[in-house]
Amino acid sequence: MLIILALAVFFSLLLALLNYIRIGKMPDGTKEMSEICSIIRQGADEFLKCEFRILYAAAAGIFIILAVFVSLSGAVCFLIGAAMSALAGLVGMKSATLSNVRVTDEARRSGDIGKTVKVALTGGSVMGLSVAGFALLGLFLVYIVFGIIMGQLKQEAVQFHSNFLGIADIPFTMSVSCYALGCSVIAMINRVGGGIYTKAADMGADLVGKSEYNIPEDDPRNPATIADNVGDNVGDVAGLGSDLLESYVGAITSGMILAIYTYYSRLGSADPIGYKTLLALVGYPLLFASAGLLSCTAALFIFNLHKAGRNAKKNLDGTTYLASGLTVVSTLALTFAYFPNESSYSGLGFKIAGISPWLCAVMGIVSGILIGQVADYYTSYSHKPALSVAKASCEGPALTITKGMALGMSSVLIPVMLLGLCIIASYYTAGLYGVGMAAMGMLSFVAVTVSVDTYGPISDNAGGIAEMCNLKKEVRQITDSLDAVGNTTAAIGKGFAIGSAAFAALSLFASYLYALNGQESSSGIALVLNILDPLTLAGALVGGAVPYLFSGMLIESVAKTAETMVEEIRRQFEQDPLILQGKKKPDYNRCINISSKGALKEMKKPAFIAVASPLAAGFIFGPSFVGGLLIGTTLSAIMLAIFTANSGGAWDNAKKHIENGNYGGKGSPAHNASIIGDTVGDPLKDTVGPSLDILIKIMSVVALITVSIFSRYNIAALF
Amino acid sequence: MLIILALAVFFSLLLALLNYIRIGKMPDGTKEMSEICSIIRQGADEFLKCEFRILYAAAAGIFIILAVFVSLSGAVCFLIGAAMSALAGLVGMKSATLSNVRVTDEARRSGDIGKTVKVALTGGSVMGLSVAGFALLGLFLVYIVFGIIMGQLKQEAVQFHSNFLGIADIPFTMSVSCYALGCSVIAMINRVGGGIYTKAADMGADLVGKSEYNIPEDDPRNPATIADNVGDNVGDVAGLGSDLLESYVGAITSGMILAIYTYYSRLGSADPIGYKTLLALVGYPLLFASAGLLSCTAALFIFNLHKAGRNAKKNLDGTTYLASGLTVVSTLALTFAYFPNESSYSGLGFKIAGISPWLCAVMGIVSGILIGQVADYYTSYSHKPALSVAKASCEGPALTITKGMALGMSSVLIPVMLLGLCIIASYYTAGLYGVGMAAMGMLSFVAVTVSVDTYGPISDNAGGIAEMCNLKKEVRQITDSLDAVGNTTAAIGKGFAIGSAAFAALSLFASYLYALNGQESSSGIALVLNILDPLTLAGALVGGAVPYLFSGMLIESVAKTAETMVEEIRRQFEQDPLILQGKKKPDYNRCINISSKGALKEMKKPAFIAVASPLAAGFIFGPSFVGGLLIGTTLSAIMLAIFTANSGGAWDNAKKHIENGNYGGKGSPAHNASIIGDTVGDPLKDTVGPSLDILIKIMSVVALITVSIFSRYNIAALF
Repeated sequence: MLIILALAVFFSLLLALLNYIRIGKMPDGTKEMSEICSIIRQGADEFLKCEFRILYAAAAGIFIILAVFVSLSGAVCFLIGAAMSALAGLVGMKSATLSNVRVTDEARRSGDIGKTVKVALTGGSVMGLSVAGFALLGLFLVYIVFGIIMGQLKQEAVQFHSNFLGIADIPFTMSVSCYALGCSVIAMINRVGGGIYTKAADMGADLVGKSEYNIPEDDPRNPATIADNVGDNVGDVAGLGSDLLESYVGAITSGMILAIYTYYSRLGSADPIGYKTLLALVGYPLLFASAGLLSCTAALFIFNLHKAGRNAKKNLDGTTYLASGLTVVSTLALTFAYFPNESSYSGLGFKIAGISPWLCAVMGIVSGILIGQVADYYTSYSHKPALSVAKASCEGPALTITKGMALGMSSVLIPVMLLGLCIIASYYTAGLYGVGMAAMGMLSFVAVTVSVDTYGPISDNAGGIAEMCNLKKEVRQITDSLDAVGNTTAAIGKGFAIGSAAFAALSLFASYLYALNGQESSSGIALVLNILDPLTLAGALVGGAVPYLFSGMLIESVAKTAETMVEEIRRQFEQDPLILQGKKKPDYNRCINISSKGALKEMKKPAFIAVASPLAAGFIFGPSFVGGLLIGTTLSAIMLAIFTANSGGAWDNAKKHIENGNYGGKGSPAHNASIIGDTVGDPLKDTVGPSLDILIKIMSVVALITVSIFSRYNIAALF
Repeated sequence: MLIILALAVFFSLLLALLNYIRIGKMPDGTKEMSEICSIIRQGADEFLKCEFRILYAAAAGIFIILAVFVSLSGAVCFLIGAAMSALAGLVGMKSATLSNVRVTDEARRSGDIGKTVKVALTGGSVMGLSVAGFALLGLFLVYIVFGIIMGQLKQEAVQFHSNFLGIADIPFTMSVSCYALGCSVIAMINRVGGGIYTKAADMGADLVGKSEYNIPEDDPRNPATIADNVGDNVGDVAGLGSDLLESYVGAITSGMILAIYTYYSRLGSADPIGYKTLLALVGYPLLFASAGLLSCTAALFIFNLHKAGRNAKKNLDGTTYLASGLTVVSTLALTFAYFPNESSYSGLGFKIAGISPWLCAVMGIVSGILIGQVADYYTSYSHKPALSVAKASCEGPALTITKGMALGMSSVLIPVMLLGLCIIASYYTAGLYGVGMAAMGMLSFVAVTVSVDTYGPISDNAGGIAEMCNLKKEVRQITDSLDAVGNTTAAIGKGFAIGSAAFAALSLFASYLYALNGQESSSGIALVLNILDPLTLAGALVGGAVPYLFSGMLIESVAKTAETMVEEIRRQFEQDPLILQGKKKPDYNRCINISSKGALKEMKKPAFIAVASPLAAGFIFGPSFVGGLLIGTTLSAIMLAIFTANSGGAWDNAKKHIENGNYGGKGSPAHNASIIGDTVGDPLKDTVGPSLDILIKIMSVVALITVSIFSRYNIAALF
């Protein structure tokens, strides 16, 4: 298992490096193009630099707190997690800001969609492979150094035979949880900061440019254009990457913790599990992830060799299906080899011994793909829902908004039903461990998912550069067709991100109850959280409101920063009429600074809420309340995330549909109404939705790490 | 207790009758005024007639199902409940459609705000007193006839000593639940149908009138004006009345059921409760409600005698505070007399024997008032939040919508925290029975709450009549000032309705677990629903999505009907230019018909979902899944209801603030943006929010009644 893990890490990072070098060697077009590209790169670097400063401070603070109150090994694992997540985001963004101009140039030189797609996806693959590679590298270190060499796994297994005493008794659970926390904190900062950055720029540019002065998107006269392009990189590349990295790590770690729980729950039974079986179960999520990563590396490598066809969507889908197919087949083979003696697992309560965890993972893969398809159905303009929003635009902005909201709300049910079915099926196949494995399955080919998702903003940026450099219409046409596919993949990716986040959060939630149970009694076999306990019920109520507060604050932050941006754009247009005539370049940097400062300032409060709310709840009302809080937050956030993602996606595509010449096309009243819909939807789908994914995971991890402390020290316990 | 109950019913209905007669005797103004009023009345009557036809069919169907599958007594109780709720709605609407023109006329003749307020509130009081009076009358019948005379209470108490067998073992619980179901079904039809009716008319009128042709609200040239006014009566009067009647009944009945549960849970203990104590506990919610109703009757009677001041808000607040104060004092005195021997209650687990249920009720009253105040803070234009939405209107519709949504989302936390605190405090004071009593307390002065809430649409209609009859500006000024107060009371009333619905639903949910527990074992003392059971968790996930689907469908229905309305208005304007010049009357009746037909057609699907979803879930996945479904739906609906109510209220008041001359006043770009915000908010705050209140109650009641059937017959049990 460890060999396969090492191979997966090695090959994935090697391919990432090779692709990075290949991209770097490509020509970066005309002087104007490379100039604009370097402004974008500088803007992104500048933002990351400021962000990393906050990040260092936050990481240092948390490190000290963990070292003092939890354990030194936990604190170290936290740092490893933070470093891996930050590295993946950094590498991905560097690659994206290199690739964008090269995509434009490929389109300009070859005029061939296939070749252009190839450049874009190669650029994206650097991010995808880094995300999975760095995540596994860190887990590899934690597992080897802390779990095996320092003997934490053995220690945790032995402790179960006596009563629990505290954190010291679940050292390995703590180590992997702290590793996950490291990834979560970076993800929160990247996602929230990036989300505010990108949408403030986008909204500001649209509010003045499109609505007031009627100049098209990405027009070089608009001072906020480049800030908008920088935003795509910091929000949709770095943010998305660290988000999915966190889900990935969350799924693997909660699979490992639930394996220990399975061991623990069989202790008192007639058929206990041996230490060797425990090791096998703990290692299985890592094995599955490694096989998945190797499959993704192979699929992306094949894509590199292969001549790409003219249908952009087919290329992307082909790679995704190849990766997921390879994952399913290779893990099946590995599972047979890994769990050789079926009979030794009969005590696990698995209905189908041996391959039952694998079955759960496959259920996860299938439901993940289906959830993505549902998101596509609701948001793509090839289907009825988004088209009806486009039609409503003819009746003005009020109906556009109303219809889009109704669509988003109605779209929540099916994905959630799929999640529910997957939970029931995987639980009855392999217990809670099976639910954890389903989460793992959904995320097993994350390397390709992220590559395809990163392809989107790269293409978007490429189109922006083409527009700003006034390249030929044909170039823009190619980048536009790439971008349109990118919108669909983004919607599918969002469905995927939400589904996997929900699964990861629920597995982490189960781990929380395991850690809590461990504190309370050594005989508690089943994990129980009674929702009719008044503290739990109150916790669930308050928990349900947390995502709303969090979302409200994020939208408010975007709106506030966008308002400042609007004033700046107006000021530039009014002070110098030459800008609007296209005779003078606007001051791009002031807009970049506004977005950057706004994002850095505004992201602190929501990030703080995510970390502090389970802590405050725990130390005041105790662990039952926190249990309710977590379940309430998770439920509420899943619904809100799907609602906002699909409403926003539908508004965006309704606008695109009109821009394609329907209902009067560009400049018609319907188009104006659809722009308003899109502007409302932007912060919903790109800031709120994705940040909610992280909210639920970070709250669960924080609760998981601190439960042993606040279950003993809380105000409610005094009564 | 029974004497006080009888007195309360008698006096409240007597005062309602007297006030109705007094209103009827007042003059109804000029010929034009009485003409318009009679069109409104006819439109409302016509709609109710069609609605009642659906209602008869639904009631007959449910009666047969209940008689066959549950019990004949349950079916009869259902009919009583349905009749009481329908009666209250009918009487209230008749009174409201009489009062509106009389308010206008009072303003015209006297020019005195105080006198005008008095007419409006007297009209409203007919509805308020009927709601509470009829609700208690029905409960009185059920308690006396089925509980005492037919001995169902005794029977239920005796059965506890043997094992549970099925529905036959909880006959009284079934009877009161079926009574509550009767009220719920009517409430659902009234609320959803009325909500679609009123907002389709309102949206249609605004979309064409204000946005396209720039004619003011309530302008007689707009063909949809009268449909809009009819809508106020069917939605905000009949709908709101039956909604709160249902919450009221839900709170009382779940208090009664939880009393039986308290008895049941003490059975195995060292200190069981006697049958007499059981009777006292079951009767206490009725006693409390009766005292509350008597206090309300007294307060409204005093208001009738008293000369009203010139400050409209003070008059309303004074009556509310008087009623709640009288309720608190009178129930305290009654409680001491009712529970004479404190020591006999020591076995109840009450921390403060004797008056602990009273304390819980007072906590409910206090938290209800606080929740209302929070709603006022977020929506009134005297406070920062709504003002910031008004300010954002200067930047166009996109920012208006964005800011309003952010406001609504952020406003969810505090009311929910108040609910949570109230649950914890009342549980630790008097157990689950205490939580039920808190719900009871919150609703104890419902007669005044509904009176004040009905005052709003009456004033709104009065203003419309003044505008349509081109009365003097001073008249409109008086009705406008009444209307503005009505908006605030409506927002407070909505907060109250959500809070009480949440409490009632949670108490019903506890009753559900009691009924379920009864099916499963006679020794199960504690009510437990483990959220980590996979079926429960999946149920909670799906449950969380149900309110979204329901809301999406409602918004879609309103939008669809409004679109038809828009086409009709445009058609009339285009076919006959004389209408716009004011030289010819538009065809009001066609618009009334569109709203009416649309509402009747569109309300069936959401109403069906509310009733069918717990049934389908129960018969497929069994009772644990339904438990999850109920808690998921309740949590999700509370959040959505607060969000939609407050966003909608803020948009409405931001528009009013601009119309008062700020940011350019009427006709300015800011005003146009604010109209778009208001149009988006209308279906959210007046259709979706209030309907969600009913959704959670009706689902709980349906589950409660059918749990004994589907807990034995479901597909999941086959595996």
